[in-house]
Amino acid sequence: MNFPSPKDLKVSTLGRCEIPVPRRSATMPFIDEARGIVLSADAADLQACVQSGQPLPAFEPAGLRETIYFNPATVACGIVTCGGLCPGINNVIRSIVLTLTYTFGVSGVRGFRYGYAGLASQRGYEPMMLTPESVDRIHEFGGTILGSSRGPQDVADMVDTLEQDRIGILFVIGGDGTLRGASALSTEIARRGRRISVIGVPKTIDNDIPWIARSFGFATAVEAARAVINSAHQEALGAWNGIGLVKLMGRHSGFIAAHATLASCDVNFCLVPEVPFVLDGHAGLLRALEHRLERKHHAVIVVAEGAGQELVRRPDDNQHDASGNVKLGDIGTFLKDQIAEYFAARQTEVTIRYFDPSYSIRSQPANSIDAEFCLALGQHAVHAGMAGRTNMMVGYWNQHFTHVPIPLVVAQRGQLDPQDLVWQRVLEATGQPATMS
Amino acid sequence: MNFPSPKDLKVSTLGRCEIPVPRRSATMPFIDEARGIVLSADAADLQACVQSGQPLPAFEPAGLRETIYFNPATVACGIVTCGGLCPGINNVIRSIVLTLTYTFGVSGVRGFRYGYAGLASQRGYEPMMLTPESVDRIHEFGGTILGSSRGPQDVADMVDTLEQDRIGILFVIGGDGTLRGASALSTEIARRGRRISVIGVPKTIDNDIPWIARSFGFATAVEAARAVINSAHQEALGAWNGIGLVKLMGRHSGFIAAHATLASCDVNFCLVPEVPFVLDGHAGLLRALEHRLERKHHAVIVVAEGAGQELVRRPDDNQHDASGNVKLGDIGTFLKDQIAEYFAARQTEVTIRYFDPSYSIRSQPANSIDAEFCLALGQHAVHAGMAGRTNMMVGYWNQHFTHVPIPLVVAQRGQLDPQDLVWQRVLEATGQPATMS
Amino acid sequence: MNFPSPKDLKVSTLGRCEIPVPRRSATMPFIDEARGIVLSADAADLQACVQSGQPLPAFEPAGLRETIYFNPATVACGIVTCGGLCPGINNVIRSIVLTLTYTFGVSGVRGFRYGYAGLASQRGYEPMMLTPESVDRIHEFGGTILGSSRGPQDVADMVDTLEQDRIGILFVIGGDGTLRGASALSTEIARRGRRISVIGVPKTIDNDIPWIARSFGFATAVEAARAVINSAHQEALGAWNGIGLVKLMGRHSGFIAAHATLASCDVNFCLVPEVPFVLDGHAGLLRALEHRLERKHHAVIVVAEGAGQELVRRPDDNQHDASGNVKLGDIGTFLKDQIAEYFAARQTEVTIRYFDPSYSIRSQPANSIDAEFCLALGQHAVHAGMAGRTNMMVGYWNQHFTHVPIPLVVAQRGQLDPQDLVWQRVLEATGQPATMS
Amino acid sequence: MNFPSPKDLKVSTLGRCEIPVPRRSATMPFIDEARGIVLSADAADLQACVQSGQPLPAFEPAGLRETIYFNPATVACGIVTCGGLCPGINNVIRSIVLTLTYTFGVSGVRGFRYGYAGLASQRGYEPMMLTPESVDRIHEFGGTILGSSRGPQDVADMVDTLEQDRIGILFVIGGDGTLRGASALSTEIARRGRRISVIGVPKTIDNDIPWIARSFGFATAVEAARAVINSAHQEALGAWNGIGLVKLMGRHSGFIAAHATLASCDVNFCLVPEVPFVLDGHAGLLRALEHRLERKHHAVIVVAEGAGQELVRRPDDNQHDASGNVKLGDIGTFLKDQIAEYFAARQTEVTIRYFDPSYSIRSQPANSIDAEFCLALGQHAVHAGMAGRTNMMVGYWNQHFTHVPIPLVVAQRGQLDPQDLVWQRVLEATGQPATMS
Repeated sequence: MNFPSPKDLKVSTLGRCEIPVPRRSATMPFIDEARGIVLSADAADLQACVQSGQPLPAFEPAGLRETIYFNPATVACGIVTCGGLCPGINNVIRSIVLTLTYTFGVSGVRGFRYGYAGLASQRGYEPMMLTPESVDRIHEFGGTILGSSRGPQDVADMVDTLEQDRIGILFVIGGDGTLRGASALSTEIARRGRRISVIGVPKTIDNDIPWIARSFGFATAVEAARAVINSAHQEALGAWNGIGLVKLMGRHSGFIAAHATLASCDVNFCLVPEVPFVLDGHAGLLRALEHRLERKHHAVIVVAEGAGQELVRRPDDNQHDASGNVKLGDIGTFLKDQIAEYFAARQTEVTIRYFDPSYSIRSQPANSIDAEFCLALGQHAVHAGMAGRTNMMVGYWNQHFTHVPIPLVVAQRGQLDPQDLVWQRVLEATGQPATMS
Repeated sequence: MNFPSPKDLKVSTLGRCEIPVPRRSATMPFIDEARGIVLSADAADLQACVQSGQPLPAFEPAGLRETIYFNPATVACGIVTCGGLCPGINNVIRSIVLTLTYTFGVSGVRGFRYGYAGLASQRGYEPMMLTPESVDRIHEFGGTILGSSRGPQDVADMVDTLEQDRIGILFVIGGDGTLRGASALSTEIARRGRRISVIGVPKTIDNDIPWIARSFGFATAVEAARAVINSAHQEALGAWNGIGLVKLMGRHSGFIAAHATLASCDVNFCLVPEVPFVLDGHAGLLRALEHRLERKHHAVIVVAEGAGQELVRRPDDNQHDASGNVKLGDIGTFLKDQIAEYFAARQTEVTIRYFDPSYSIRSQPANSIDAEFCLALGQHAVHAGMAGRTNMMVGYWNQHFTHVPIPLVVAQRGQLDPQDLVWQRVLEATGQPATMS
Repeated sequence: MNFPSPKDLKVSTLGRCEIPVPRRSATMPFIDEARGIVLSADAADLQACVQSGQPLPAFEPAGLRETIYFNPATVACGIVTCGGLCPGINNVIRSIVLTLTYTFGVSGVRGFRYGYAGLASQRGYEPMMLTPESVDRIHEFGGTILGSSRGPQDVADMVDTLEQDRIGILFVIGGDGTLRGASALSTEIARRGRRISVIGVPKTIDNDIPWIARSFGFATAVEAARAVINSAHQEALGAWNGIGLVKLMGRHSGFIAAHATLASCDVNFCLVPEVPFVLDGHAGLLRALEHRLERKHHAVIVVAEGAGQELVRRPDDNQHDASGNVKLGDIGTFLKDQIAEYFAARQTEVTIRYFDPSYSIRSQPANSIDAEFCLALGQHAVHAGMAGRTNMMVGYWNQHFTHVPIPLVVAQRGQLDPQDLVWQRVLEATGQPATMS
Repeated sequence: MNFPSPKDLKVSTLGRCEIPVPRRSATMPFIDEARGIVLSADAADLQACVQSGQPLPAFEPAGLRETIYFNPATVACGIVTCGGLCPGINNVIRSIVLTLTYTFGVSGVRGFRYGYAGLASQRGYEPMMLTPESVDRIHEFGGTILGSSRGPQDVADMVDTLEQDRIGILFVIGGDGTLRGASALSTEIARRGRRISVIGVPKTIDNDIPWIARSFGFATAVEAARAVINSAHQEALGAWNGIGLVKLMGRHSGFIAAHATLASCDVNFCLVPEVPFVLDGHAGLLRALEHRLERKHHAVIVVAEGAGQELVRRPDDNQHDASGNVKLGDIGTFLKDQIAEYFAARQTEVTIRYFDPSYSIRSQPANSIDAEFCLALGQHAVHAGMAGRTNMMVGYWNQHFTHVPIPLVVAQRGQLDPQDLVWQRVLEATGQPATMS
């Protein structure tokens, strides 16, 4: 296995930590920075690595440091939330505000509104002041109290705002594109020689950010997706040759589709971006679906929004949305139409029910496992920021919270490995052909 | 107020009830048929009616009779479920089977599959035999174990099937169109001089069947709709000028839209078929929405699927679906597009999130209040059938279960009265203009 | 049937309504006071009544009046919540505040804290000022933002407070004892010749207040109780001779126990205060339970807290709690011990799981049907108060909201009638012997 | 750090795997047995270990082997579920049955009833035959379809039964005591020289089994516990000096109490077995509670059932329950009484609400994350059994499923480390004093 180099794993810092942490919470243990968290749990790989004389590839551990970089009495902090909704954003905001206030004694946290747009000089809306009182119950609601938006803003303009507002630490809650933006902010800040830390908390309902075992909100999303699959199953059972077709989130990665399939037990076909499929021909999806209906007279199909893009987009189609993402073709309605056409041509009566629950899922409040995870992510983001780390995100790997350089994160995308156990379990659970091609 | 005439309220019967009911359940009280249930609770109306020498307009009460028409030892029964899914269908099936078995000692209940299609001689699927064991846990699931379908079948052909299968009582669970079908079956049966009772249990997620205070599944549907509205609210809050647009069920009647609006507290515009609206102009929806966004920067719109049809259908467009219903234009996507266009033209940035949760709602299992209601409806359907009633449905009015002649039911449609309190509460709760015209 | 006399149905008023209602909400229809709501829907009874020359027994209808008693510009209002928690209290508070503010233009609603104790001159806590902003989201939470307490306070002292605070309308949300207190306040106010309206909103999780078809919070409570019964069923199934024993609310009335039994389908014995039972002997509960276990090896028992009091209280035991209610013996743990003893004596291995979910149920937020009901109750309470009604509560009967004199309400208690359909359905659903005595 | 020795990590096997696995599911990847899963993710520890010339401490990986020990055509399998209910047991049963059937082609899986008692020769109940059809929907329900019981049985007698029934693989789903029993079975089987594999699937709602990062059902239990804490919070808010006291599971380990505290945000005191506390004195719980009430007038306390045993048990009290566990004193009611007494003595009015939701939580169906986890655990249990492993359980560590020798598991107990981050987060989230002693 090829590991990232020690250089790539090294987290940027603004400078030395020389201020003793205020011991407001008397007992929180200090993290031992010497104790890195290995990237792999594979004994053979690790053994080989050491024996070849290389250091073990390891993340810097997250946690409270004995000395910190920023003076809690004077540092000003900001939070911004970007991209689509995801369960738990408010929990992270709340955790950051409470940790800044109670652990460090920082006062005055600024909540920039509506994503990076709220950092633009031309923003039409002022930041909110966030206090323990104002964030007290926000974790009970989905969404983000700060509002969000997609897409980048002018980097220099945003850094101007940070300077004007005398921000010391900016917490950025967002996904792939947002983290690229955070990295660009860090670079510009460094270029100007400013002392502003930019700390990311990875938010991706698709779970497609690498080096975080499971992103926050994902467990809640799978729970909500399972409920929709259950509805699709009832609708499929309720009609002769009933077909429940559910489009789930997943632009490039089929994690929600795959895990919701495994959490449910009623999916017969799970289609994800990582595993191409064909519609037609003997080995195609439509024929497999026909077989299924002949045997059982009902079927449930789950399709990730990014699956089968080769079927719905012309090769030269290259439109992008506000976030800079390639605009996806709508595989859901495409499949619905293709299925209807196929069976109409064969004069087979089918009833298709189409489900597109994306926004109902994204807007849920965090379930318990996500709520607790968000609490910890927020705390460790503050620990990292106060310690002068920058251009990094908080990760979770091999049962430990970690510091992960953003450049490492945005260099690749987390995806299902079709050879891996999760996808193989999906094949077993659905009984779908391993290849439909 | 104009009441139906006594003739219209009279329930058809197959003949005299001369068989003593088997006292298996020792204590269920016998209903006193003399005690009709008045249609109105208005003291002034009732007083005037009596004083004018007319009998009070009243439904025959539902309930167990001391003597019955069918011999429980020999009568065969059938159940059929038609139309779209609705929470509680399985509960009604279960209640009918258990009551036939345990209260009357009837054995062998036939479950016709996939709606009226399962009564056709050319049906491709055999009926299921329903027993207390086979229906024991079905109430825990949404949908219908029998399957359903839309649309009518040849009436004579269906009566042939009933005769061949020697069915004595057919229980029909379905809506408006289904009840018309049940009535046609009764007429044909009477024409042939057969002794087959046809008993309806009204199923309408739109709650648009008259003379039943609240149809089964409606409370569950409103609960599920409220959850989606909550999601729409979070999505609206999460973006600058965020608009959550939710399309709910309601082809001709806005009950779900109105009641979900009242159960939620986050709806700013509720659009229903009963109250026409215009999009454009000073008093139109779009201008009102713009005002709302200017003040609050987020808005939630709930639209019943049958609202605004004058906007989306050409006057000469008269297509019908399998159930014989006029095909509705898609007001949801129409509104979404119109709103986008309106604000694009004004260069106002808005973010629209569209929700179409229909099938996720229809497929829910019954909540507690619906579960109990279904139990009673099923029991009373059996009581009515065993007593030789026919061409009637079980109703619930003024806190009593009733027998309602189907011809009375299908003569009109239950709709919101814009002058009535429910709609007025919607206007107060939303703050929307009383007229957008 | 014996109806209350017209005198008993007459609602007290403070005086003539001479102030035109401010038409802030342009279209809310005015109620026609002539149109009373009949107490019975029984055609025979009503017919007989008219023919005997008596007026039909009817409630005054609730609703907005064209002219009102209080001047919205000057009247001050107060709200107090008393007794145990019940889903929906916050919804009622919110509805009252919003209706006072937006429909009538009243400003400054005072929320007295912690029940009647908050009206005492020696109260240790000041009222909260309630505004549309402060109550905006409270309906999303269970409990009461005002706090509550049990038990009466000195009536004269409370009226002193109302006078000092220049309260014109006091809204009292509470049960049986609370309404008695409200009536006493009215009487004292009348004795002093003051112009203070006291309007009750009946709150009883036991559903034991008469003349309201279903009290608010009840549907939510039954839903939560059903979930616990489901747990009891799983625990019973999970052990050889497993017994799930669930104690539910219901001091004098078994409504929750009965309706949760009907909404569930897993209860084998339902015990309520209205139907005495014996433990021992051939026809006793213990022998019946033994039979059940011999056949099925698992059983679920639901017992209302007020059931079987003759078994657990000594005849001379007459302790009262803070609300003035007789202290109940703990039938739940008594039954648990008796069952354990009975089977131990027979060397029959049983596993008993005991559930006492009372406070988990009471503290739920209102479900949709209750939320909408609370909205209407609050509106009509305000309509009644502004119209100068007093010593009355808002009711709901025969599908209409009504004004019900409190003396009529506290004269009797709503209870299950063992001869009636609900209890008979319970007997059928459980299969328990009609008498265990 | 001290790691277990390689010997302690070595999994017992019945013999060589020489039968090629039937390739029914064409693509499930084979696991590479050489790739152990390291026990620690600490780079420094691992580096030191290798440099000292020792092999890295690692678990054998779980997964499908290319060759297996048992002949799928002839092997008979059994499943037994022991101890208290836990969400997900049925999911594990279902996964084992489906994997045996569809992956390996094994037919005829025997479900022993009611725990180890179902393996006794004197059992009063026959095993169930488990087929894909009979287990198809069981995952939708809590509990265990096999039933369960506590406590051991005679080991030789149970092995006699296994021999008589010609069982090749016995799957044991249970906790600490159950796994000890499984180990004893393995030892006796080995003594007799029989070829019977005993594979454990660790079930512990307390999450107190070591070397599994999170046991199945735990996430569901925390979710349910959070809901109860929310109720306790509402009840506490609803009364002047309201105290919500919640007893949660956790005989020796406070994981549920701690994680539910972190998932909620409303707990003020969290008491666990690992952190002793005193009631009285300046630093005691009662004084701290009094301070809290003086400031806020409401408080929520969560107590694990095994907390504060030094307060409720006499040192010489050594009673054991059927499972051989020390009988715990009831800390919940003890605290309730002590709190009541303390404030009564100070004439401070408080209202205490006590919650004991244990069985309501244990009986829940698995949430999505647990459902998927159970699916994988069941698959890997079958993989291990077919490969002739024995006296081991399936674990999950550092993001991989593993084989863990049972003797290693039962040698210690998983507990909260008071110095560790989870407990420190609890202290921060509650604001409770780090020591109450």
